[in-house]
Amino acid sequence: MRLDVVTIFPEYLEPLNVSLVGKARTRGLLDVGVHDLRDWTHDRHNTVDDTPYGGGPGMVMKTEPWGEALDEVLADGYEAGAGAPALVVPTPSGRPFTQELAVELSSRPWLVFTPARYEGIDRRVIDEYATRMPVYEVSIGDYVLAGGEAAVLVITEAVARLLPGVLGNAESHRDDSFAPGAMANLLEGPVHTKPPVWRGRGIPEVLLSGHHGKIARWRRDEALRRTTAHRPDLIERTAPEAFDKKDREMLSILGWAPDPEAGRHGRFWRRVEDVEE
Amino acid sequence: MRLDVVTIFPEYLEPLNVSLVGKARTRGLLDVGVHDLRDWTHDRHNTVDDTPYGGGPGMVMKTEPWGEALDEVLADGYEAGAGAPALVVPTPSGRPFTQELAVELSSRPWLVFTPARYEGIDRRVIDEYATRMPVYEVSIGDYVLAGGEAAVLVITEAVARLLPGVLGNAESHRDDSFAPGAMANLLEGPVHTKPPVWRGRGIPEVLLSGHHGKIARWRRDEALRRTTAHRPDLIERTAPEAFDKKDREMLSILGWAPDPEAGRHGRFWRRVEDVEE
Repeated sequence: MRLDVVTIFPEYLEPLNVSLVGKARTRGLLDVGVHDLRDWTHDRHNTVDDTPYGGGPGMVMKTEPWGEALDEVLADGYEAGAGAPALVVPTPSGRPFTQELAVELSSRPWLVFTPARYEGIDRRVIDEYATRMPVYEVSIGDYVLAGGEAAVLVITEAVARLLPGVLGNAESHRDDSFAPGAMANLLEGPVHTKPPVWRGRGIPEVLLSGHHGKIARWRRDEALRRTTAHRPDLIERTAPEAFDKKDREMLSILGWAPDPEAGRHGRFWRRVEDVEE
Repeated sequence: MRLDVVTIFPEYLEPLNVSLVGKARTRGLLDVGVHDLRDWTHDRHNTVDDTPYGGGPGMVMKTEPWGEALDEVLADGYEAGAGAPALVVPTPSGRPFTQELAVELSSRPWLVFTPARYEGIDRRVIDEYATRMPVYEVSIGDYVLAGGEAAVLVITEAVARLLPGVLGNAESHRDDSFAPGAMANLLEGPVHTKPPVWRGRGIPEVLLSGHHGKIARWRRDEALRRTTAHRPDLIERTAPEAFDKKDREMLSILGWAPDPEAGRHGRFWRRVEDVEE
């Protein structure tokens, strides 16, 4: 897979040299190019922004440097045989970046990232490249950053770890929070390792029992406990058939019941106090 | 504000030296310490992880190095008069990190981050420090990363830009997506700057009109358009009084209507096709 990033803060992308992404590059699984947008400016001040049409605070990133940068980065990639590019535009007004979208992006041969600063990039840049390739305008969450670079690190990491050969142990995807399968829609519960007692704190006895069935059940109960506490929205929209009899017992203990209007509004479960309201 | 980060990839935190956070540090508004967890290991291999109790794939980060590291980092901060610490634990099974939580964290004098790798940190570490200080277990979104370091960059940036004196133009918070106020729950629409024509693409005429009322209205309509397209969930849960008559007209054009059971399930608006279903 090829990744290109055009930014005014190339040094912010240093983490792409370390850890998982860095190793994937060393092993030839990823080809990453980080480009300084200011290299495509032609004035003495390397201007990349200007005041917004219509007034208001903040500055808008100009069309010309972005257009020239993307044209050259795209031409280089095509020449290197990178395959079909897709543009990834991190923006708080994009659609949510999810694990599902990470999987989709991981199947593409070439991603070109355009992290913006200030109030964002002149809309015409996105409109222009959208005529030539898929454009993913994505938001990594409901919070405001100073620019898109941190989002690029998040997205590249989520995508890179899904590439074949990047993670050492293929199994370790399986129990991921948000991964498809048994744990879909459930957060992972607590984990423990040696020593058996630390600062007076022991570990749950069941984990020492060697009884695989009981351990699996305990883990699932803990996942249900944690998910109801931190992410009731995930429980609410889980289809009834995804929970077995023991799950339902645990949900009941945790104060949850099937929604009397099950499935309406995509909601299948409710807290008992909501049901009785 | 003081920030400490304990990690096995200190070099991943390099971006804390650049851009907004870097400038805030230079100006004395932020005091940042990045610490290598392996400095608190005592074996030849600097071991920080071990196999999970109960079996299964992946490794769990050990209690001892984290305990020693946190004790020392906390002692140093207390000695320096950093105020009351809070622990911030990035984890996919945490509660969602939101702009509201960014605001809450920005009011604290001292944040200590514990980005984990592998399957996470032995639960007893969190339980231990939770007896001494607030612990925020937070998830930056519904996707899986290789570790918590990218999340630390995201959280520190979201928090740092809210600190007094960090952003140059105080006004530029006001129109943020997710900011409280008029644009709460609305994504920002498109932005434009000079030149007026680029590669045959012009800009919306209203932005050249000089008519502030019309421009404000156009921006709000575009925000509504974008939010309905990318984040219907935000529209659904917006209280009716947050939209004025023109907003409602625009919502109607976009195919949205008040929910007949307004307010039930925290849902106030529905797509017309849902209403007629």
